[in-house]
Amino acid sequence: MNKPFICLLTDFGLHWGAVSSMHGVIASIDPSLRVNDVSHLIPPFRPWSASYCLKYTSPCWPRGTIFVSVVDPGVGTARRASVAKTALGQYVVTPDNGTLTHIKYFQGIEEIREIDENKNRRPGTEKFNTFHGRDIFAYTAGRLAAGIISYEDVGPLYPVEEIISFPITPSHIEKGRAEGIVENTDSHFGSILFNITIDDFEKAGFKMGDTIAVEICSGAEVRFSGTVLYQPSFGYVGLGEPVIFNGSTGYISMGVNRGSFSEKYHIQSGNEWTVRFNGVV
Amino acid sequence: MNKPFICLLTDFGLHWGAVSSMHGVIASIDPSLRVNDVSHLIPPFRPWSASYCLKYTSPCWPRGTIFVSVVDPGVGTARRASVAKTALGQYVVTPDNGTLTHIKYFQGIEEIREIDENKNRRPGTEKFNTFHGRDIFAYTAGRLAAGIISYEDVGPLYPVEEIISFPITPSHIEKGRAEGIVENTDSHFGSILFNITIDDFEKAGFKMGDTIAVEICSGAEVRFSGTVLYQPSFGYVGLGEPVIFNGSTGYISMGVNRGSFSEKYHIQSGNEWTVRFNGVV
Amino acid sequence: MNKPFICLLTDFGLHWGAVSSMHGVIASIDPSLRVNDVSHLIPPFRPWSASYCLKYTSPCWPRGTIFVSVVDPGVGTARRASVAKTALGQYVVTPDNGTLTHIKYFQGIEEIREIDENKNRRPGTEKFNTFHGRDIFAYTAGRLAAGIISYEDVGPLYPVEEIISFPITPSHIEKGRAEGIVENTDSHFGSILFNITIDDFEKAGFKMGDTIAVEICSGAEVRFSGTVLYQPSFGYVGLGEPVIFNGSTGYISMGVNRGSFSEKYHIQSGNEWTVRFNGVV
Repeated sequence: MNKPFICLLTDFGLHWGAVSSMHGVIASIDPSLRVNDVSHLIPPFRPWSASYCLKYTSPCWPRGTIFVSVVDPGVGTARRASVAKTALGQYVVTPDNGTLTHIKYFQGIEEIREIDENKNRRPGTEKFNTFHGRDIFAYTAGRLAAGIISYEDVGPLYPVEEIISFPITPSHIEKGRAEGIVENTDSHFGSILFNITIDDFEKAGFKMGDTIAVEICSGAEVRFSGTVLYQPSFGYVGLGEPVIFNGSTGYISMGVNRGSFSEKYHIQSGNEWTVRFNGVV
Repeated sequence: MNKPFICLLTDFGLHWGAVSSMHGVIASIDPSLRVNDVSHLIPPFRPWSASYCLKYTSPCWPRGTIFVSVVDPGVGTARRASVAKTALGQYVVTPDNGTLTHIKYFQGIEEIREIDENKNRRPGTEKFNTFHGRDIFAYTAGRLAAGIISYEDVGPLYPVEEIISFPITPSHIEKGRAEGIVENTDSHFGSILFNITIDDFEKAGFKMGDTIAVEICSGAEVRFSGTVLYQPSFGYVGLGEPVIFNGSTGYISMGVNRGSFSEKYHIQSGNEWTVRFNGVV
Repeated sequence: MNKPFICLLTDFGLHWGAVSSMHGVIASIDPSLRVNDVSHLIPPFRPWSASYCLKYTSPCWPRGTIFVSVVDPGVGTARRASVAKTALGQYVVTPDNGTLTHIKYFQGIEEIREIDENKNRRPGTEKFNTFHGRDIFAYTAGRLAAGIISYEDVGPLYPVEEIISFPITPSHIEKGRAEGIVENTDSHFGSILFNITIDDFEKAGFKMGDTIAVEICSGAEVRFSGTVLYQPSFGYVGLGEPVIFNGSTGYISMGVNRGSFSEKYHIQSGNEWTVRFNGVV
């Protein structure tokens, strides 16, 4: 049987050797293990972004894949170091600090164990408390993937209800209207994605080709207000024009053809960033 | 027999999970496949840069290698999704939007097939039209590399003459003179590279150690004019001084010792950026 | 027996195909070789940073690992192209231009060979003098890892004493005081690291929970002066506050909780950047 893939997700950046140190620890445990770099440019200290990224990426990977997600502003303090087993049959090795929010809510977490750091810590690193990504998380993932320890050997179970989560705002759908939040902004192309599924959007009655009244707010402040075409992709509107489209994981998105929607309108993500689709014009 | 390598080349950036999603799709098809990231920082929406990068990189890779090149501003519109078979015995899986220009002109393309999206699309993604990189291109490359489909199964052949190409400006050589265009600027070190081969430059009579009169123009506007040493490398001229050297793929280049030529003189690439070497001083 | 890993470390950036060309050369030599990207964002033309990064990363990798370190402002000039065998049983393939400083001083180098470029150069690249990273260093590392050449085949030995090194400033410890230099600044999180080991710091009498008087100077100019808590990690001090902590490779470090110490106080690294811990307050 194939050994599982390990996927690394951190806010460590690519300018120095932190990421390679994690690869090296895993290679030293078992040179046959295969490791993918999901991203190391998660916005620093922002577990919400890591949480969304895990939800976005994990369904593309096989059952058994072990994600190591380390966005860990509280490294070395009392937050739990954990391994979660998800409803997709994958594992997430991570500080339990909010990173599991989206996976728990949208996929489901079957159980979670707290890493016993006395057994699962790279020997010789007892005095170092700022690089658990290497010394605890990559080390534990490597030994789990190699079959040196079992999932049960990680440490004791604790209740799934105790997992630290950010609040999740549900979307709201009615005939001709849809409301939700900005779930994520893509910092590269500048598209934004809402927590409204394509299926729900269609149930509300919107269809491709419609021109829809849209309002995006940060708290009480309106940041975008306009009528926007709902099309299959960017290329169906003029250069620099906004467009509503079906995002690539099943959620309604907005973008600008060859431009950045989030930069142009200064849109960020989170529960206070709300969107309303107020009917077809 | 070894399965071919897959090499990914996109403008998706590294800040989120898009690239890892492509890796995951391939790993899910066949966990033994090996994938290299050529670059995911191609200037957004600029197939010319992807085209040049393919020409630059591909000769270093073995026969059979499958390149997936996705710089796709028209994703979800009518441009063809294709797989080209090159004269080097490699494959390029790509939207046919100009990305194949350099390979076609400088290496040659033996044949090209349009991907039949009914057969070669990741199941469950029919509603998503903005991530063909994952759902069509990586998916098709993975199944091709794994041997699940043959090249013939990709879809129907179409004439190589129909491949979308940018215009190619040939270089011009005579005794003591060479003319061409700026083919590429290296956005990292700031060297620039012309479409004049080292062999042609030598045929024009230039040799290492010469001081050569050079003029670089954007249309009719002179951007650089001066006399420059032709040397084996940067380190043969003073700090901050310009130098002509043999680029690493057989073309004449210019740079600045420990500086950026393209930034210092605001040079870009393309057919309107011309260079003239006007004899030895 | 497993073939050794190859680890690449350059200042080439990720915006174009240079790194992938190195991967391709290695894949063309032996498709079974496995290659890790340590970093390609080493500050351009700064072998000191590559040298520190090698010291930082290499202990995480197995014996036998072959590092290819190419920060090479003098490419194509007379500096030696070399392969060093380290006291950890690893190899470093590199221009001998200072990159070996930290490995030589802190780990030890057993022997070093100059690459015979007549035997160990990618065929057909004789006219190219600006990409030895691909044509000599990656090529030699690949053939060494594949077992096509032995370490002895690289070229002739030369005395370890002739290795080009930057000056190393030793730290100084006495009761209640510790002095050293800023060895490295982490350009991502902005932590800084000194050349003072945790063990020496403890010998000087400092212990977790102490508030310590610290002064950091650039030459004679004071850049930081204050009293700082010594704690296990960032999270033990308030947001934006400085903290002394045990760095993850055994050296005393300083940072700012969720901020950048090096940016806030404009701290850089090198022998002229000194630190003094002047006792417990």
